Amino acid sequence: MKKRKDNGELAAIRRILARLPERADIRRGAGDDCAVVRGADRRWDWLLTSDPVIEGVHFAAGTPRAAVGRKAVGRILSDLAAMGGEPQWALLDVVAPPAMPVAHLDALYDGLLPLANRFGMAVVGGDLASGQRLEVHAFGVGRVPAGRAVLRSGARPGQGVYVTGSLGGSVRGKHLRFVPRLREGAWLRDWATAMIDVSDGLASDLRHIIEESGVGARIDLPRLPVSRAAAALRDGRGPLAHALHDGEDFELLFTIPAAREPAFAAAWRRTFKLRCSRIGSVTRRAGVLECVDPSGRVSRLTDTGYQHFAAKEKNR
Amino acid sequence: MKKRKDNGELAAIRRILARLPERADIRRGAGDDCAVVRGADRRWDWLLTSDPVIEGVHFAAGTPRAAVGRKAVGRILSDLAAMGGEPQWALLDVVAPPAMPVAHLDALYDGLLPLANRFGMAVVGGDLASGQRLEVHAFGVGRVPAGRAVLRSGARPGQGVYVTGSLGGSVRGKHLRFVPRLREGAWLRDWATAMIDVSDGLASDLRHIIEESGVGARIDLPRLPVSRAAAALRDGRGPLAHALHDGEDFELLFTIPAAREPAFAAAWRRTFKLRCSRIGSVTRRAGVLECVDPSGRVSRLTDTGYQHFAAKEKNR
Repeated sequence: MKKRKDNGELAAIRRILARLPERADIRRGAGDDCAVVRGADRRWDWLLTSDPVIEGVHFAAGTPRAAVGRKAVGRILSDLAAMGGEPQWALLDVVAPPAMPVAHLDALYDGLLPLANRFGMAVVGGDLASGQRLEVHAFGVGRVPAGRAVLRSGARPGQGVYVTGSLGGSVRGKHLRFVPRLREGAWLRDWATAMIDVSDGLASDLRHIIEESGVGARIDLPRLPVSRAAAALRDGRGPLAHALHDGEDFELLFTIPAAREPAFAAAWRRTFKLRCSRIGSVTRRAGVLECVDPSGRVSRLTDTGYQHFAAKEKNR
Repeated sequence: MKKRKDNGELAAIRRILARLPERADIRRGAGDDCAVVRGADRRWDWLLTSDPVIEGVHFAAGTPRAAVGRKAVGRILSDLAAMGGEPQWALLDVVAPPAMPVAHLDALYDGLLPLANRFGMAVVGGDLASGQRLEVHAFGVGRVPAGRAVLRSGARPGQGVYVTGSLGGSVRGKHLRFVPRLREGAWLRDWATAMIDVSDGLASDLRHIIEESGVGARIDLPRLPVSRAAAALRDGRGPLAHALHDGEDFELLFTIPAAREPAFAAAWRRTFKLRCSRIGSVTRRAGVLECVDPSGRVSRLTDTGYQHFAAKEKNR
């Protein structure tokens, strides 16, 4: 459902980010999954994140209200997971059409409260305003032991690139039903050098990691954990293109130092039933995102590269 | 500009509030200017607040973008002021029409960053999404020494009711240009027993205080600090009605114990140039909001009561 930001928007965002203040209490400002700030208590850092969930952008008109509420809270929980955080509190600003039955507002909370409660996030307030489309703007606060937030900027050449679960085709339902990877994210504080959640799409999100880390990455296409939903889509783009570029899988994408990879793989299997795939490695070629196809051919992956792969897949 | 919430919405909000969790770390959940929560550090409480600023609701189409941004940050700063809080960090979710020039996004920040910086609030992130109307959803975090947040619930019979500045007619410009009363709010931690900012209108906001405190209040109409903007409005409602019912003055409304009133008045005059008016007193009649007109007649003030006063004023 999510629309990509165009280049003008990205440029505007970059320009605005450059204007934001620097302060000793801001460990990491805008540009990661959450902001990381420090209060008087030096044992914990606070994680702050916000996400909109808007009709026609993040969900289709007619989506059950409970699913909308669940997604709104799920998105901020996933942001906290991607830093290794522990959820604490949330506020929800709801914009609702005046004609929306009040029962729909209750349904929204029917969807969001169980997910928030399950992961220890207390909804402590918010606001209700009227508008033409249903929107939920969720604001989340989490915490992490001081200095332990897993940023996007820690990837180093030679490290392995991993992703949880499977990718692609979330539009078929997972974008409303995903379980944020909070247990996994907190556990990964002891392993991952960089981490992000897959919200824009694997290629875009891995690009965020390599840009923040000043490195490159190479993806082994045959190792991509293509979801059944992606394989079932029959829109001519091919499953690999969906796994590479579809957004909103809300899986964790992270890097592990090479020397620790065997121990990591064993520890993961002992701890989680969830699939975890090594999909590639970090390279020295700053800003360059490449992929290796089944025949061993290396290609550069651009934001529109999926069309190339889609064509190839159809020719296989 | 602000539309009042109707009874259906208020009932829905009350029903949802009743479903929110209670937890030891939540000192005050939804239902005050900010939520008050406590982390591991027991010296400080955290204040969390969110407010939407939406085209056609909180500002007219064509309002300069800088003024919109300023108002978005001003509203959350005013919420923090109303608890006696010190601003810390903010996130901003912006929804912008796709056709909006990118320069307007810069202008939005031109308006909001100086106000945020002036009061020590660092903007640390947010999100940009596209929509039909311009909206800014601001989320703010502040702090207050543990246990010192000034709630709406502390008013007791016999206490004086005070308001800063002047009231009414903010639609003529103050709703975009107000200065949040942060210095005054933090100073009032040592004096006020209950406090709120005037966002819905004096009568509505004083009603919030008496309902949360289980008391009543009586307003002396001749003592209301009617603004020049209210006096200049020629819409037949009369200046007093505007001062009683107009929203978005973002002044502080608070209560002071009777025994401390003389010392309070002297201390205020020593500290601030800003006008501060004693406009009435707290009564024992729980839930009853009354007013006394210039002839000494006491009337019950309802949410539609301004029509009564408007008629009287015209007959004077």
